[in-house]
Amino acid sequence: MSTIKVKVPGSIMLMGEHAVLFGEKALACAVDKYIHIELVPRPDSEIHIDSALAQYQSVLEDIADEPKLSFVIAAVRRYSAKLPSGFLLRIQSEFSHKVGLGSSAAVTAGVVAALSAFTNQSLEPQALFDKALKIVHQVQEGRGSGTDLVASIYGAVVSYRVEPREITSLPALPEISLFYAGYKTKTPDVLKIVEAKAVKQPEVYSEIYKLMGLVTEKAEVALKQKNWLALGELMNNYQGLMDALGVSDRSLCDIIYSLRGSGRILGAKISGSGLGDCVLSLGNDSGLTLPYEQIPVGVSAEGVTIEYN
Amino acid sequence: MSTIKVKVPGSIMLMGEHAVLFGEKALACAVDKYIHIELVPRPDSEIHIDSALAQYQSVLEDIADEPKLSFVIAAVRRYSAKLPSGFLLRIQSEFSHKVGLGSSAAVTAGVVAALSAFTNQSLEPQALFDKALKIVHQVQEGRGSGTDLVASIYGAVVSYRVEPREITSLPALPEISLFYAGYKTKTPDVLKIVEAKAVKQPEVYSEIYKLMGLVTEKAEVALKQKNWLALGELMNNYQGLMDALGVSDRSLCDIIYSLRGSGRILGAKISGSGLGDCVLSLGNDSGLTLPYEQIPVGVSAEGVTIEYN
Repeated sequence: MSTIKVKVPGSIMLMGEHAVLFGEKALACAVDKYIHIELVPRPDSEIHIDSALAQYQSVLEDIADEPKLSFVIAAVRRYSAKLPSGFLLRIQSEFSHKVGLGSSAAVTAGVVAALSAFTNQSLEPQALFDKALKIVHQVQEGRGSGTDLVASIYGAVVSYRVEPREITSLPALPEISLFYAGYKTKTPDVLKIVEAKAVKQPEVYSEIYKLMGLVTEKAEVALKQKNWLALGELMNNYQGLMDALGVSDRSLCDIIYSLRGSGRILGAKISGSGLGDCVLSLGNDSGLTLPYEQIPVGVSAEGVTIEYN
Repeated sequence: MSTIKVKVPGSIMLMGEHAVLFGEKALACAVDKYIHIELVPRPDSEIHIDSALAQYQSVLEDIADEPKLSFVIAAVRRYSAKLPSGFLLRIQSEFSHKVGLGSSAAVTAGVVAALSAFTNQSLEPQALFDKALKIVHQVQEGRGSGTDLVASIYGAVVSYRVEPREITSLPALPEISLFYAGYKTKTPDVLKIVEAKAVKQPEVYSEIYKLMGLVTEKAEVALKQKNWLALGELMNNYQGLMDALGVSDRSLCDIIYSLRGSGRILGAKISGSGLGDCVLSLGNDSGLTLPYEQIPVGVSAEGVTIEYN
């Protein structure tokens, strides 16, 4: 059997953070930083994984654990009964897993795509998403909306609702920019902080999530119409709601308002759960120098792609 | 007739900015910076006004205009038919009209109180408020919620709804602090900016106002219970909604997040319509030095007071 090559874009949250966990829609965007996965079949039952995070070796009959590769191992285990032989998996990422480009989701989608191809299973996006989400939930003990998976699998911009599941492909964005605050708080920790506030004022928090949902629906309309001015304004509205939730901070505001000060930026908001990580803006001003790391990204029109050599 | 002395506290908005104009409740607070008004009857029909803003002289039979004293002159005109004689009005303020302590409302309430006393009319807070609000609306062409008037007249903290009118006296706050951003945008100009955004997304803005109303109602509950922790959190929630409305900016966020970084501060938000002016915090940390002017204020338990000498 021939080598299988998979290329998966990273992703960023465009809108819907937090509220997506409460039944509202989210919008995510595939970015042009990719994870490359190469599956080379082996004549034996050995599994080799070559990744920047770990060098791994095991056998199909008794797949060993490796915490640094938990998503990959979980995927391999799910497919193990159907695998025709062992294989070498080469995983290369164009971006650090430390900035919020959804590397776990991208690598999971990519490995699932490679293993599906290797076992001659369906590669339809919907099926890929189902399988990858199960693996993410298994590793994260049921947590994770799957929004980043949707973006990595479908490409460009997608709107997504968890339940009842809705996935809609939307046009790609024009230029964007992404700045890293220099630190991040893990999403589960952010969720705990918000939850502690929400139990004291459940009605207020539930209304904030609903309003986030409304802003996201309007943003989906703006995206369909390619009304970038409106989308930028709605990003600003959403950012205020993130602030109301308690997940903005001084550095994030500093980046956001510095960006909004430029005439070339249509809107700016946190991308992700907040309390650190990245600020996303619609528009990019190369003349703007901020004391924060810019992560050069564009939108990837393509989602997961597979190539047989 | 004897001299009438009136002392009126300035006021700050605690919550309800913008939303109060759309039928939601507002919370305002009287502060311990006062305007002092002294009315000395004259044996003739001359009107003399001695104020830092202008020196003014006229006669009852033909009251001249003076743009710098527009609220005062409008009040005198309303009372002119009933005035027993001319008078000297001395107006002294403990604070600049340039920072947002509601000086126009306070001076209007004070002059109306002095003229009511001079003409032996009712000095009940409700009647005083009615008369003062008519004058404010006359000068401002119908604009102004009257929230600052309520606080200056009633003292301590008040909750207020425009229509149907509701005024509720609430307990005074513990320590507060107030920082001036160094610039301000006039309220009517801020309202125009928000209005321009709102016409593009009327549903989003209408829901933001409703949510502001909900947060303010919860804050009123917290105030009644003297639950300062909850009030502080709700101030933070409201600030996010102000940001969602588009009236926060870089300096305001810088002050707000610097304050929130202190363990002695329970909450911080813009006080007033935004895009400049002041940030109000619940709690004060004297160890905190910010590169912004602190306006030393406390809460005034008393509203308008009148003294006959």
